[in-house]
Amino acid sequence: MAQHTVTSYDQELESLGRKIAEMGGIAEKMLSDAMDALSGLDVDLAQSVVISDGRLDLLQRDVEAASIMTIARRQPMAVDLREIVAAIRVSGDLERVGDLAKNIAKRAILIAGEQRVPRAVIGLRHMNELAANQLKDVLDAYAERDVERAQAVWTRDAELDALENSIFRDLLTHMMEDPRNISFCTHLLFCSKNIERVGDHTTNIAETVFYLVTGGTMPLDRPKARPGASLAAPVEAQDEP
Amino acid sequence: MAQHTVTSYDQELESLGRKIAEMGGIAEKMLSDAMDALSGLDVDLAQSVVISDGRLDLLQRDVEAASIMTIARRQPMAVDLREIVAAIRVSGDLERVGDLAKNIAKRAILIAGEQRVPRAVIGLRHMNELAANQLKDVLDAYAERDVERAQAVWTRDAELDALENSIFRDLLTHMMEDPRNISFCTHLLFCSKNIERVGDHTTNIAETVFYLVTGGTMPLDRPKARPGASLAAPVEAQDEP
Repeated sequence: MAQHTVTSYDQELESLGRKIAEMGGIAEKMLSDAMDALSGLDVDLAQSVVISDGRLDLLQRDVEAASIMTIARRQPMAVDLREIVAAIRVSGDLERVGDLAKNIAKRAILIAGEQRVPRAVIGLRHMNELAANQLKDVLDAYAERDVERAQAVWTRDAELDALENSIFRDLLTHMMEDPRNISFCTHLLFCSKNIERVGDHTTNIAETVFYLVTGGTMPLDRPKARPGASLAAPVEAQDEP
Repeated sequence: MAQHTVTSYDQELESLGRKIAEMGGIAEKMLSDAMDALSGLDVDLAQSVVISDGRLDLLQRDVEAASIMTIARRQPMAVDLREIVAAIRVSGDLERVGDLAKNIAKRAILIAGEQRVPRAVIGLRHMNELAANQLKDVLDAYAERDVERAQAVWTRDAELDALENSIFRDLLTHMMEDPRNISFCTHLLFCSKNIERVGDHTTNIAETVFYLVTGGTMPLDRPKARPGASLAAPVEAQDEP
């Protein structure tokens, strides 16, 4: 293979890497902005989250198309091929993280009429911070091809499920105490489910890092509650295997 | 290109098509079984749905790997390349439809303790039948490369959103009438959201059929309610663009 070919191939991989890094930055910001919009009942901020999702969708299609053209042009094998498959998978997960952040932002718009912010939002904020840190960690693990770090993130996903369980019970209690809480607590239930699904995509990315570096699949059971083990978490467990 | 090469290339495409057809059959059965399990509080049937999801995940990884190897080996261009990209996308959507059916099945296991089946399940059944028909239609459109049929399916997705709205209001009323309804009605809320997301994947597949046949993107606005247009539906609108 001529040197300039190798070089331009490396440039294609670098360009994929840059696009995924941009996607990660957008997804992280959407997630924290969506939660700020929800707890601040800030409609403008929520709408800005909805708008930024378009950029994420464009980048994902862009990564997918560029990856496929690179595979067709270069016919990469082994780790080179895994690099590109991983890029397609990670960009897909980040695109869906953006969708979930957008959904939280839309809920924020819907409940903005509420004059008070329910206590349960504090738990949601905490859950969202954990999910955002997990996402940042796994994207660093992806950038550094760090399998141990990816596995650590993957294992910590169980904390998100535990948090969702307690928020679920908290919101249910809230609803039972006063029927006027039912409508907006329902929105918060969906928000916590969205955050838990961000965690599922984070574990997907961790599994992709493992595949990228080793060529295999992560030799652990998913860090999820078992079906029926609790009311809230297990149902979306392995939502995105 | 030698004849035998063309032939074996065609065989690779046929094999992808067969795998996707099998995935479609499994996803459709999981969806109807999950709803039967929910309305019949049938734990065994629900568990069989959870188990069949594993086969769907395997098939999806299989289609993805085979597609990528075909791209690397054949360097297909234009419609041939779109064939394979479409296979990757459709298998991804079907895999997630399976996840959603599995989630409904897990909810069925969780609420199996309830001795009575809430009235709202009738609405859910209706919604699920509509979603299953839409899925069957779009898979036929994919098999026949029928753009008009795909667009018709895509447009009808708005009916699912409308149904989810009415089920959402119905369940909320149920919860407000009697706090003892809150816990299992919450599970049904998540079930209706899962069914609505099946509709999102169906519209994704419709868009993929359009891309496959024309090389372009569907020239219509998504058949979704606008943000804030209702309490329930718009929030997950464009959940999976």
